[in-house]
Amino acid sequence: MQKKGLFITFEGTDGCGKTTQLNMAAEFLKSKGYEVVITREPGALETGKKIRQILLHSEEKLSDYCEMFLFLADRAQHVEALIKPAVEQGKIVLCDRHKDSHIAYQGYGREKNAQLIKELNQIAVNGIEPDLTLLYCVSPEVAMKRLSGAPDRIEAEGTKFQERVLEGYKKIAKENPERIKVINADNSVETVYNDTKNTIIELIEKKFEV
Amino acid sequence: MQKKGLFITFEGTDGCGKTTQLNMAAEFLKSKGYEVVITREPGALETGKKIRQILLHSEEKLSDYCEMFLFLADRAQHVEALIKPAVEQGKIVLCDRHKDSHIAYQGYGREKNAQLIKELNQIAVNGIEPDLTLLYCVSPEVAMKRLSGAPDRIEAEGTKFQERVLEGYKKIAKENPERIKVINADNSVETVYNDTKNTIIELIEKKFEV
Repeated sequence: MQKKGLFITFEGTDGCGKTTQLNMAAEFLKSKGYEVVITREPGALETGKKIRQILLHSEEKLSDYCEMFLFLADRAQHVEALIKPAVEQGKIVLCDRHKDSHIAYQGYGREKNAQLIKELNQIAVNGIEPDLTLLYCVSPEVAMKRLSGAPDRIEAEGTKFQERVLEGYKKIAKENPERIKVINADNSVETVYNDTKNTIIELIEKKFEV
Repeated sequence: MQKKGLFITFEGTDGCGKTTQLNMAAEFLKSKGYEVVITREPGALETGKKIRQILLHSEEKLSDYCEMFLFLADRAQHVEALIKPAVEQGKIVLCDRHKDSHIAYQGYGREKNAQLIKELNQIAVNGIEPDLTLLYCVSPEVAMKRLSGAPDRIEAEGTKFQERVLEGYKKIAKENPERIKVINADNSVETVYNDTKNTIIELIEKKFEV
């Protein structure tokens, strides 16, 4: 049926529910006979795990540029060693966070140079663009409730930070209306899943069944 | 005597003798009462050691861009956490390989995008330029003799590769005549050391004793 696979990324602020949606979408696609690869950034591969270890558990305070280049190194390897070959083999790759996370969190959330991070990501991905990005937009109040079991994650950098990240995501979505589908993630899991599923079905119909 | 320190980098192909010269220069400068910091790239700091480990001992084949970004991450951290503060404290930092190695080896040696690597290095160093770069140019025959104890290093990528690296270094030197001093490293250690010492003394006189 399909000649070439698909690359779909799942994006959003903490507590938006994207990982749940990714897993539900994976089950749906598998039930339809598609070969699905679930992956994430940072830290999907052996090299990525080591890079993730440096990013999350370094005793040294990492400089902003060091952190930026480590994310880019992870992404470059992930694209080249996993995403690209999987898509070429006709698989559907579902990726939990990708370049838009980097731009939204480091670029807009921390108010660093978003434009530079965008440009460097285009180098890192080396021509591999997601066929679709699902952006789950959740209001801070709903996110807080969902993350009540682990409030430290969202509180660590504060709600102002999460708001800046969300605004950043929205800017990126505006710049990429063809690629990014914004989904209202304040709704129930079922409603959000319907939006997710319908968007993916639409993409598959457009790509494979014309 | 000095208000602000110095940042001097030592560059050249394998077997050029730069590490020997760096250590001799360090002894000389210490004997003159300067506070000297000896360092190297990649892998000077804790983060850098972990990055070096990935660069040298990864079981995964690293993509070109992953490797490039790892070198840049190491450099960004090294500059920010070690070189910049040491120079601000009035120390003389002697660094064994820096950005020119990256440009010469990955850019020119492997015939990748030297221009891109140059530009990204300017981001990584974040405004910190060496006050002086000593470039030790050695002919392949002399280098081979010097490395006879460990011929695998120079032979690993072949003499053609070393020649391309050397040509790359010469191009970089032409583009930066103010910063880079080319030293004939085919000469005896003593002669090369005289050139090294005189060049550093000249820099110190220009910088501190006017």
